[in-house]
Amino acid sequence: MPMPAPLTGVVPPVCTPLTPDREVDVPSLLRLVDHLVGGGVDGLFVLGSSSEAAYLTDRQRRLVVESVVGHVSGRLPVLAGAIDMTTPRVLDHVRYVTEAGADAVVATAPFYTRTHPAEIARHYRLIASRCSVPVFAYDLPVAVHSKLGAESVLELAAEGVLAGLKDSSGDEGGFRAVVTGVRAHPGITGFSVLTGSELVVDSALAMGADGAVPGLANVDPHGYVRLYRLCREGDWERARAEQERLCSLFGMVRVGDAGRMGGSSSALGAFKAALHLRGIITSPTTADPQIPLSPEETEGVGKFLAGAGLL
Amino acid sequence: MPMPAPLTGVVPPVCTPLTPDREVDVPSLLRLVDHLVGGGVDGLFVLGSSSEAAYLTDRQRRLVVESVVGHVSGRLPVLAGAIDMTTPRVLDHVRYVTEAGADAVVATAPFYTRTHPAEIARHYRLIASRCSVPVFAYDLPVAVHSKLGAESVLELAAEGVLAGLKDSSGDEGGFRAVVTGVRAHPGITGFSVLTGSELVVDSALAMGADGAVPGLANVDPHGYVRLYRLCREGDWERARAEQERLCSLFGMVRVGDAGRMGGSSSALGAFKAALHLRGIITSPTTADPQIPLSPEETEGVGKFLAGAGLL
Amino acid sequence: MPMPAPLTGVVPPVCTPLTPDREVDVPSLLRLVDHLVGGGVDGLFVLGSSSEAAYLTDRQRRLVVESVVGHVSGRLPVLAGAIDMTTPRVLDHVRYVTEAGADAVVATAPFYTRTHPAEIARHYRLIASRCSVPVFAYDLPVAVHSKLGAESVLELAAEGVLAGLKDSSGDEGGFRAVVTGVRAHPGITGFSVLTGSELVVDSALAMGADGAVPGLANVDPHGYVRLYRLCREGDWERARAEQERLCSLFGMVRVGDAGRMGGSSSALGAFKAALHLRGIITSPTTADPQIPLSPEETEGVGKFLAGAGLL
Amino acid sequence: MPMPAPLTGVVPPVCTPLTPDREVDVPSLLRLVDHLVGGGVDGLFVLGSSSEAAYLTDRQRRLVVESVVGHVSGRLPVLAGAIDMTTPRVLDHVRYVTEAGADAVVATAPFYTRTHPAEIARHYRLIASRCSVPVFAYDLPVAVHSKLGAESVLELAAEGVLAGLKDSSGDEGGFRAVVTGVRAHPGITGFSVLTGSELVVDSALAMGADGAVPGLANVDPHGYVRLYRLCREGDWERARAEQERLCSLFGMVRVGDAGRMGGSSSALGAFKAALHLRGIITSPTTADPQIPLSPEETEGVGKFLAGAGLL
Repeated sequence: MPMPAPLTGVVPPVCTPLTPDREVDVPSLLRLVDHLVGGGVDGLFVLGSSSEAAYLTDRQRRLVVESVVGHVSGRLPVLAGAIDMTTPRVLDHVRYVTEAGADAVVATAPFYTRTHPAEIARHYRLIASRCSVPVFAYDLPVAVHSKLGAESVLELAAEGVLAGLKDSSGDEGGFRAVVTGVRAHPGITGFSVLTGSELVVDSALAMGADGAVPGLANVDPHGYVRLYRLCREGDWERARAEQERLCSLFGMVRVGDAGRMGGSSSALGAFKAALHLRGIITSPTTADPQIPLSPEETEGVGKFLAGAGLL
Repeated sequence: MPMPAPLTGVVPPVCTPLTPDREVDVPSLLRLVDHLVGGGVDGLFVLGSSSEAAYLTDRQRRLVVESVVGHVSGRLPVLAGAIDMTTPRVLDHVRYVTEAGADAVVATAPFYTRTHPAEIARHYRLIASRCSVPVFAYDLPVAVHSKLGAESVLELAAEGVLAGLKDSSGDEGGFRAVVTGVRAHPGITGFSVLTGSELVVDSALAMGADGAVPGLANVDPHGYVRLYRLCREGDWERARAEQERLCSLFGMVRVGDAGRMGGSSSALGAFKAALHLRGIITSPTTADPQIPLSPEETEGVGKFLAGAGLL
Repeated sequence: MPMPAPLTGVVPPVCTPLTPDREVDVPSLLRLVDHLVGGGVDGLFVLGSSSEAAYLTDRQRRLVVESVVGHVSGRLPVLAGAIDMTTPRVLDHVRYVTEAGADAVVATAPFYTRTHPAEIARHYRLIASRCSVPVFAYDLPVAVHSKLGAESVLELAAEGVLAGLKDSSGDEGGFRAVVTGVRAHPGITGFSVLTGSELVVDSALAMGADGAVPGLANVDPHGYVRLYRLCREGDWERARAEQERLCSLFGMVRVGDAGRMGGSSSALGAFKAALHLRGIITSPTTADPQIPLSPEETEGVGKFLAGAGLL
Repeated sequence: MPMPAPLTGVVPPVCTPLTPDREVDVPSLLRLVDHLVGGGVDGLFVLGSSSEAAYLTDRQRRLVVESVVGHVSGRLPVLAGAIDMTTPRVLDHVRYVTEAGADAVVATAPFYTRTHPAEIARHYRLIASRCSVPVFAYDLPVAVHSKLGAESVLELAAEGVLAGLKDSSGDEGGFRAVVTGVRAHPGITGFSVLTGSELVVDSALAMGADGAVPGLANVDPHGYVRLYRLCREGDWERARAEQERLCSLFGMVRVGDAGRMGGSSSALGAFKAALHLRGIITSPTTADPQIPLSPEETEGVGKFLAGAGLL
């Protein structure tokens, strides 16, 4: 389907269910997509960080985007991550996700290399010039180890290079500068500013953001859709209550023992355990070399679900 | 050829010459290999950071390793980088570089993700279990944003998981702990400790390191080979003089304007400009999205070459 | 005056005007205090980061707190920073600011040293046990290089060790966890959660925060007081407009050339230039070794003032 | 005594023994000084990081410098740290340590603030212009969170602003650039380049450094003096063996449980436990808010001493 401009609403970064031997579990993936679509979300983002894109082989990535695009069949827009180190490698991903029918691509700044802001801008210009669908920038300093500046994002938006921003930087001041900059700039139209935060979606929407891309929406899409609607209706008090319920639920990402596993294992492990406990996916398996949650930690995830009324 | 155990001496991380339209320039690559072999180096490391591996597509990476392995034809060992974010993606690279005949693979810890030391160890164990040739760990915190601990490296060496370490961390205390730990540990044999530094090769060898993997050896292999021999002969005074000449030459990596380009562009751009000025490669082109050196900056590289007696 | 519990509203971190030879300019300081009190603020925070506390000698710090406490004379609460590296040194500052009549002290976690969260908690417990007035924690990772965890803050609040938090961390998720944690915890009463941000005061108050400590309130106290009132009245639309006006005004902190001076010089230099241009302080001098704004940069500050309707 | 120019040899950063109620234990301090002087060291550095200067009140700092200067009575040079956040505060410390008779002062770059390299240079120029004794720069990025550039150090050396550098940065490439730069620069005379590392003193001296300031020399001054002499005699093989023995001994700094205490507590606690076990100081007490070693951890320190032949 043609991308709405701007894209608005709740756009979950879709988890990638795996079989116990770590192949993409397509039936589980499609059940998860149905769960999200049934929850009322406005778009799907596959191959993002919450999708374990960093852990999937190219073959697996292709299978994910083809399966989801085919299954969704134009009912709502599908954005696909093109997560790799630098421009030439990102362009290879752009090629196959667009061939598979993705409605937009999402790319970070280069990582692993030591890159100047001018080179980051060049990176996005090169991608956009060779990409047939809209390009979203993905600001994720915790993974990429650089921050996209608000001025640079606005400049690329005004040039038509970028169609939107997924901001997972946690820098609310910079996020606000993009939101208000987009509104003030006569040359920018249809640009979508999305927060990647689970915890301050109400604040982001109050500032004027277009939507949210919360990993936790895999577990509770209805909650985020409700939150989005309450914000749009200006019912800030009930929005706050819903947001706080989701903040409590988000506590599950710390269920894994930090002395034993990394933050990715704990957070992605918790999301998958929750989807498994809710009966949506067949196995909570995460990709190598992540360490699985223990039975006690999985039980902890169950308590978070129960506390949020989801079990 | 079978890898010496331990691998010793000078093992340059081979630059990847590109044509002006950014395809691998195979004739230039082979001339560079001849230049290095003629300089007396003890092995070649392709697809490392100095090779712009982060910027090369999978197709280009394959072409590099196939071209070099075919050309070298067993005269000296060829190590190949398998640089990617996590275990499953690294394993894909391991597969094709070993199929192409690489004598060893070199892999970093996972990056982009938030990974625990126990997961890094698991990463190397999984790689080694599925790899037919020796595995070297590549410690490069400036790119990977985590540091391999000496104890973990020694444990993996004792298990036979790792065959060597390329340490580009700049942490001389930790490097020394690996060197002395390898020597002291009865269960570790044939393990190779290589410094990735250009600037303290003499110190590393004096500590007991096995060799060096200096990017600058692309430009001046004879210098590093000379330095290695002087150290092995215990002629520390002349070794120091040679090392200091190479330190001066290394100043070229800062020739690029830091207000205009990233550190990768400046350093890799300088190496390629030097190889171009010395007549070894046809074009100094660097990969996207790097910013090229200006004519004045290239002239600056020439001055470094002249100062080191190389022009 | 006895501290309100919780302290609410706008509590500016008061700039410290200096004479051209870098002594505390007490008449300017008292004019600034009058400007703030006249603007309707709810308390004053002296000797914080915006006060250049890091640059003031102990003698100068004493003069500041004595002058302000004496001048205010109980009309509104005066909080004083006790900014130093570790517990014993902080306790020396606590002693003289409380002797001078400060109504509360504000302390960061230890810095310069490598400190464990358990040691940070111990630090606050020791301070509180030897301090006759309420203790506020000051979370400022950009200066202190560690982050106060929400759980630790809540634990210290429940113990009665901390009376409040000034959060300048920029971590809105963690801030929200403190705000909702305070509300939910039956054992915490009178605890004040204040944002140190200039840019998301409306968001913080919408979450349930008690107030704000924005450096920019030196320049425009009326604006922040207005913003606070609009938020309290639930008029979020007009609050957002006021907040956005203040965000534009805050752009002044980047007026200084980053190639020539540090972020502290630019931000504090801009605040003082603005106070000077508004006729409130006699000289825009900043402390050593900061670099002063150029005439063109000062003119830039004037444009920000004009744009916000303040000149 | 007049400072030698350059200062050479082993200059331990003297620990500050405390009584159980955390006052300076002067008799223990003087015994420690005698232990160091008896060990053959070439100078003493009081009020550095290993001295817990960050934890000592101004009154305690004064007592330390007065006690040591009086006791040493000109037998060897005494350098004193002037560790504080910015220029005006550092100058207060400079005043009293020079009044107490320190032969040189040692100062870091500003910390807590966001400072530009040009402001750091200005900081040192201001200090030198108001200081009657030589000024040493102290490069300690782990505490100060900025790195002194080699070019800046050489420029300040050529201006006569700095008399020496204590480099605890761990950046051996940058250290070497200062060492060779000092040697090459016709305008620099008498400048002292000292490594703050415990682990690579032999490498530093082989590069041409003037001496070392190792915290571990509190525990084993004889070892470092022996190491220094072996290096000066060019007996690199025995130097390496001595250095490796000291590296093993240095393992004591990790004896404290990192899950329970910070790195400062573990390292300084181990040094003091070792001095206590060796009978040199009366109590192993460390300053607040550090967490003391457990009996088992102290026993671990004893094993390190035994392993190095010191018990």
